[in-house]
Amino acid sequence: MPKISHRGAQMPPSPIRKLVPYAEAAKKRGVKVYHLNIGQPDIETPPSILDAVRHADIKVLEYSHSAGMESYRKKLVTYYERNNIIVNQNQIIVTTGGSEAILFAIMSCMDAGDEIIIPEPFYANYNGFATSAGVKVVPIPSSIEDGFSLPSIDAFEQAVTQRTKAIMICNPNNPTGYLYSMEELQILKEICLKHDLFLLSDEAYREFCYDGLKHISALSIPGLEQHAILLDTISKRYSACGGRIGAFVTKNQQVLDAAMKFAQARLSPPTFAQILGEAAVDLPANYFDEVHEEYTKRRDLLVKRLNSMPGVMCPNPGGAFYAMARLPVADTEKFCQWLLEDFNYNGATVMMAPAAGFYATKGKGQNEVRLAYVLNSNDINAAMDCLQEALKVYSH
Amino acid sequence: MPKISHRGAQMPPSPIRKLVPYAEAAKKRGVKVYHLNIGQPDIETPPSILDAVRHADIKVLEYSHSAGMESYRKKLVTYYERNNIIVNQNQIIVTTGGSEAILFAIMSCMDAGDEIIIPEPFYANYNGFATSAGVKVVPIPSSIEDGFSLPSIDAFEQAVTQRTKAIMICNPNNPTGYLYSMEELQILKEICLKHDLFLLSDEAYREFCYDGLKHISALSIPGLEQHAILLDTISKRYSACGGRIGAFVTKNQQVLDAAMKFAQARLSPPTFAQILGEAAVDLPANYFDEVHEEYTKRRDLLVKRLNSMPGVMCPNPGGAFYAMARLPVADTEKFCQWLLEDFNYNGATVMMAPAAGFYATKGKGQNEVRLAYVLNSNDINAAMDCLQEALKVYSH
Repeated sequence: MPKISHRGAQMPPSPIRKLVPYAEAAKKRGVKVYHLNIGQPDIETPPSILDAVRHADIKVLEYSHSAGMESYRKKLVTYYERNNIIVNQNQIIVTTGGSEAILFAIMSCMDAGDEIIIPEPFYANYNGFATSAGVKVVPIPSSIEDGFSLPSIDAFEQAVTQRTKAIMICNPNNPTGYLYSMEELQILKEICLKHDLFLLSDEAYREFCYDGLKHISALSIPGLEQHAILLDTISKRYSACGGRIGAFVTKNQQVLDAAMKFAQARLSPPTFAQILGEAAVDLPANYFDEVHEEYTKRRDLLVKRLNSMPGVMCPNPGGAFYAMARLPVADTEKFCQWLLEDFNYNGATVMMAPAAGFYATKGKGQNEVRLAYVLNSNDINAAMDCLQEALKVYSH
Repeated sequence: MPKISHRGAQMPPSPIRKLVPYAEAAKKRGVKVYHLNIGQPDIETPPSILDAVRHADIKVLEYSHSAGMESYRKKLVTYYERNNIIVNQNQIIVTTGGSEAILFAIMSCMDAGDEIIIPEPFYANYNGFATSAGVKVVPIPSSIEDGFSLPSIDAFEQAVTQRTKAIMICNPNNPTGYLYSMEELQILKEICLKHDLFLLSDEAYREFCYDGLKHISALSIPGLEQHAILLDTISKRYSACGGRIGAFVTKNQQVLDAAMKFAQARLSPPTFAQILGEAAVDLPANYFDEVHEEYTKRRDLLVKRLNSMPGVMCPNPGGAFYAMARLPVADTEKFCQWLLEDFNYNGATVMMAPAAGFYATKGKGQNEVRLAYVLNSNDINAAMDCLQEALKVYSH
């Protein structure tokens, strides 16, 4: 029997999905499971953009341009302009989700054996795309005590080697919810310019910033024009995860040319969701106000509830819709499994993502969990009731 | 300025798109261009499957399962069963077009430095996916004199090295239109079993077989269960290229497990087109009869017109909707460009794909072109009138 590849064997399994069979078994036993484990918002996709798909006049569902429909890219230029990101339509490649934008960036900038520095904890799938490309992820630590702020410039300096080609950030951050400040972005600029590194900036959660904080795009930093690559998606912005539409945006022409060849090899991004994305640019300016208000309420509630539990610590996240919490347990993987297998409170339990899966360094994050506040306040309260009771009785 | 990757630099540009700027310029000059250069069918997407998308009851456009919606995979089982391919829903991973199925197969089966044997000419994007994975394509020749039948078993034997991990075929073939016989598939089986190689079988054109010939899937060959990987797409089958839905199908559990991790890293395939694909399985059994009749008529016309021109030779293709023709010119790349830049007949010209881009061996195919018979008979006739006149006056 022929053997699979080493990279196929080494691909990390999704840390979020490991517990899924336990959740399914719990549901079969009649236990209600509150899902705080994945970033699938419950917010309705704006009906007007779904209508755009319903009313699209398609006779032949043709390939679109490999960089995405020109009409959509032109619209995106105006969207980015409103967000202080000045690009033209030829600097945008529409991708199949943010996932493909990440893949194109890694493939275009790095060869097998090259290294990419990523502050940990980080979005686990970065590991998957790096593994498939043969690229080595070099983690540098951010910590819950500092609210997961950017590691020091010394930490970056120490991690740089001859093979380092890029730094990757997610801003606001998944899984930590941390929003990088201008000062932190300036540190990234300094290190990227000094060592000639690309800055891959995943800005999937751009709209989700709280407490009056403003998001700063890596692409808007003067001096980083040739280094910054913006990785984007409409998945979270418009609660359109299943559409699979993202964007790869850069002003570096060589990078664009390389990425365009990867884009041509896969022919085109999906047409229906491009129509959806194009309609979304025309949503009224106040569309995000309501979404924003709702998420702020959820975050405040979640963080307050968590910090009120003995031994629990949760920094207040400035953006995205995730929070990381330290729990008074030795191994959150076991605890999260126990919550699904052996626990219920009034017939319900809660599902969270054990944080170890977001750390590349073995042994880190074992007493942390990631919680996505993608449920309404009532459900968050009920989920926190479960967690509070569970921590009282858990004794492993 | 940071440098792009070697793989980004080495990615082959799309051979089909090189001439696009010349075609655009011709159109600007008011010249009508008959597009025989790309496999974008003019056949209407069945209205009933577009309606399924229009009427889908979606409130939150969520991620689907990473392997694709279960309801769709169950439907696909019945589709494959009708085509003599017996699999269950867990042996199918729904992909973002056939393109992603190709990528998953290469990534799951091969590491950087490994080799894949592909009879040439072959679909140019195989090269792109292999390059991105660091995999070396080893071409073995098929020739226009033999109608592009499978190379001999000796040719395969000579190409096998310690690093060979797989053989890849496209059946029916793009770009040649050749349909492999049971005898040829048995040769592939023999060589795969002997050297423990995967057989990657791209069957995008399964439904397009003519003259009463029947398509035989690699997945239906007894004894190849652990070796065969079926790469599929709905793009051509239902004229749904822009949907971006394909499938990765195999009975090899280790390969499935590896591919599933790549699938999880990119979260899910696009939802809208999965709905389209699911509806397509319910199209009436006679749906393909009309499509089939239309393509047969076009093929017969195209091949007859080509072979009637002095110095032109075009084998009769048994499947797909492509034909390869040898022209009495030294360099079809120059000729095709000249057709767009300097020629018109009654205000029209024809665009074809120079065949050199489908050969991995430098210098091969320079007097051949690929023609996609995706236009109606009147347009094919008009395009052939242009070609016939052009060959009379071309003197380079």
